[in-house]
Amino acid sequence: MTDRLQSVDRLLERREAISDLGDALRLLIEHATATEAPTEELRRAAERIRQAAGPLGERIRERTEVAAADDLLGGVRMYNPVIGRGSALAPPVHVESSNGVAVGTCTLGLAYEGPPMYAHGGVSAMLLDQMLGHAVTSSGKPGMTVQLDTAYRKPVPLMTALRLTAEVSQVEGRRVTAVGAIATAERPDEVLVTATGLFVALRAEQAQRLFGPVMRPRAS
Amino acid sequence: MTDRLQSVDRLLERREAISDLGDALRLLIEHATATEAPTEELRRAAERIRQAAGPLGERIRERTEVAAADDLLGGVRMYNPVIGRGSALAPPVHVESSNGVAVGTCTLGLAYEGPPMYAHGGVSAMLLDQMLGHAVTSSGKPGMTVQLDTAYRKPVPLMTALRLTAEVSQVEGRRVTAVGAIATAERPDEVLVTATGLFVALRAEQAQRLFGPVMRPRAS
Repeated sequence: MTDRLQSVDRLLERREAISDLGDALRLLIEHATATEAPTEELRRAAERIRQAAGPLGERIRERTEVAAADDLLGGVRMYNPVIGRGSALAPPVHVESSNGVAVGTCTLGLAYEGPPMYAHGGVSAMLLDQMLGHAVTSSGKPGMTVQLDTAYRKPVPLMTALRLTAEVSQVEGRRVTAVGAIATAERPDEVLVTATGLFVALRAEQAQRLFGPVMRPRAS
Repeated sequence: MTDRLQSVDRLLERREAISDLGDALRLLIEHATATEAPTEELRRAAERIRQAAGPLGERIRERTEVAAADDLLGGVRMYNPVIGRGSALAPPVHVESSNGVAVGTCTLGLAYEGPPMYAHGGVSAMLLDQMLGHAVTSSGKPGMTVQLDTAYRKPVPLMTALRLTAEVSQVEGRRVTAVGAIATAERPDEVLVTATGLFVALRAEQAQRLFGPVMRPRAS
């Protein structure tokens, strides 16, 4: 096997391990959120969790370093807080996108609760921001969110398969508008939350100013 | 000590344990997000995490049950995904509110990253939704978010102390509007993100329809 193949193999293996760690974290968080275990059991769990955290903290990247498993230009972000399979914060949402349209699926556990039994309104905004971003990126004009307007029609139920959709609605030079919605998988036509987002492509000098430190080539 | 005092003591002790477990989870998540530890170390951590999750999963509440440590009417929500000290998803934001005004502080770690080095746009919307909710509730007219408009002026830096503010701007019967902003603690006048939210108080029959199952008195 060539060195290059070996290094790709190692990268894929690492991404798998990161995803598995993400799955374990999500399970832990759901249990820790829903638990009515005795108080001393919570104390023991906290201790075990600190022990598990220790070795992971021994080699950590800085804010300006992209994760070794990521591919920024290729769109692989293992720790994205909405879609990242390695992110403990992400449900994660599974997204398919093409040609200015994106479709996503997820189920939100108790950790995402705002009003009793329903998703936090901010969580819905977060999911839709990400979905609109996918629609916009897949249209060939990636940009940063400059405006996100979210309208809440009905509460989003927890522990229920959700269907998220987004679509580019307008393109004006560097400004792209997209619209999106959240529904349940069972009743995709009954819209619960909608969002409209305006995205603007960065000029080269803006990108350099904002992301300069991470755009430098790696030493390795 | 009276039985009532003992039971309050146990409740406070449990809330402390939940907060400590939350701290441990946040530490774990930050390390798991930033780690460049060897791949086999990630595998080992996933195993330890599943072991820690096990005992917590033995007694868990249903979606329709409020956590025993919570006090819904008293506003104690230990697992709220923005302010809950027991929530792994919450930074958490520390909020003080009074008379229609809310001020909050937090620092966002790498787990909240959207564009490299900056907070995910959806995270900002989520923080502001929560802040606006506090301002609205402290005005004496709590309601559900029906519209949240978020404007992004500059990216929100990670690992930087943030200052969040919100204020009720208009009250019309059951409809309350609030505005809010995110800035850094160091430069509170340089606004990074703003939001305007419309909240509407539920009528009794709406509250009953949405939250009926959790509004039933506890059996215990």
